[in-house]
Amino acid sequence: MKLYVSPRAPNPRRVTMFIAEKNIKGIEEVIVNLSENEHKSTAFVAKNPFSGVPTLELDDGRVLSESRAICAYLEGLHPEPNLMGTTFEERAFIEMADRRMELSLFGSIANCIRHTHPGLSALEQPQFHDFGHSQGKKMLVVARWLDEYLASNEYVAGDRFTIADITAFCALEFARGLMKFNPGELGLSHLHAYRNRIALRPSV
Amino acid sequence: MKLYVSPRAPNPRRVTMFIAEKNIKGIEEVIVNLSENEHKSTAFVAKNPFSGVPTLELDDGRVLSESRAICAYLEGLHPEPNLMGTTFEERAFIEMADRRMELSLFGSIANCIRHTHPGLSALEQPQFHDFGHSQGKKMLVVARWLDEYLASNEYVAGDRFTIADITAFCALEFARGLMKFNPGELGLSHLHAYRNRIALRPSV
Repeated sequence: MKLYVSPRAPNPRRVTMFIAEKNIKGIEEVIVNLSENEHKSTAFVAKNPFSGVPTLELDDGRVLSESRAICAYLEGLHPEPNLMGTTFEERAFIEMADRRMELSLFGSIANCIRHTHPGLSALEQPQFHDFGHSQGKKMLVVARWLDEYLASNEYVAGDRFTIADITAFCALEFARGLMKFNPGELGLSHLHAYRNRIALRPSV
Repeated sequence: MKLYVSPRAPNPRRVTMFIAEKNIKGIEEVIVNLSENEHKSTAFVAKNPFSGVPTLELDDGRVLSESRAICAYLEGLHPEPNLMGTTFEERAFIEMADRRMELSLFGSIANCIRHTHPGLSALEQPQFHDFGHSQGKKMLVVARWLDEYLASNEYVAGDRFTIADITAFCALEFARGLMKFNPGELGLSHLHAYRNRIALRPSV
């Protein structure tokens, strides 16, 4: 299998961290150069018409995109350690937590960065700065909720490490790099400790 | 179980259509009045801190939110007819298709409507009109891709009706109502025929 990635993009990181947590070997990584618009090349669009990374090419030539769908496939191939739930009930509650991290936390961070950061102006045209800044404020609301939640929960989906922690961590790291987001400076001590705890994992 | 919904909102419709396709009986629907900000009331936020509908309250008092997570739970309780995949491989490919419909089609429609429609100004403050209009253009790009895809596929995830069709249909209906989106007028004949085909299902 080949995994198409881009080194500093947060979505490919979600899948490579998932692979590292499961200690899956043998997936070839292929770099897609986003700043040269390689993801919009005819060859890449033929693989993934939505032009996104990560994209997973199976050995039979079929192509799977969307971070969470790729993780679901890899979890099926390599069930242990389980990261997405063992029963349908646990899977549903982990999916809820993962989606909250993706759609609310990661989503507002990505919108803020894409619409305000000069380095992203080639990827996001036009940028809407006011919208981007408002998304930065929304992200802080989610971060405060998460900080409070983590006061009494070790992980985002409860009492064990799951895919929802990968999504949260990759979002927080994206914000740390390009929004200079530092939960410690904002008094979000539980979120700060959580970030540092996850950063110690070998997959990071 | 109680399902918290709002009559004209598209996300609750995804879950109620999923329930109708599976012919699940006995889930009580409770209306949440979004225009009166009932979703931000203390009582509702205690159930769902992200204030969204749909929200499912289980008989044991636990609360599950996020449309796709609720559907995954209901699919576990009521496996037939299968709408999310029977093998891990099929589940992954259906999730890919569902996410494309949700994040690209539905996402751009929702952003366009929330940021441009006067009727949504109470829910989305401030509205960023230019951003909203640009999302309307992005939606057309996805709609054109989907039209082409449906020239040789009967359903969004291939050859059978799945959750991805529910997401696509609810997105298209939201756009039909509040963006006056009419694929037939735009020459998107495959998408137009698809919309009309899905609209004949008893779940609609």
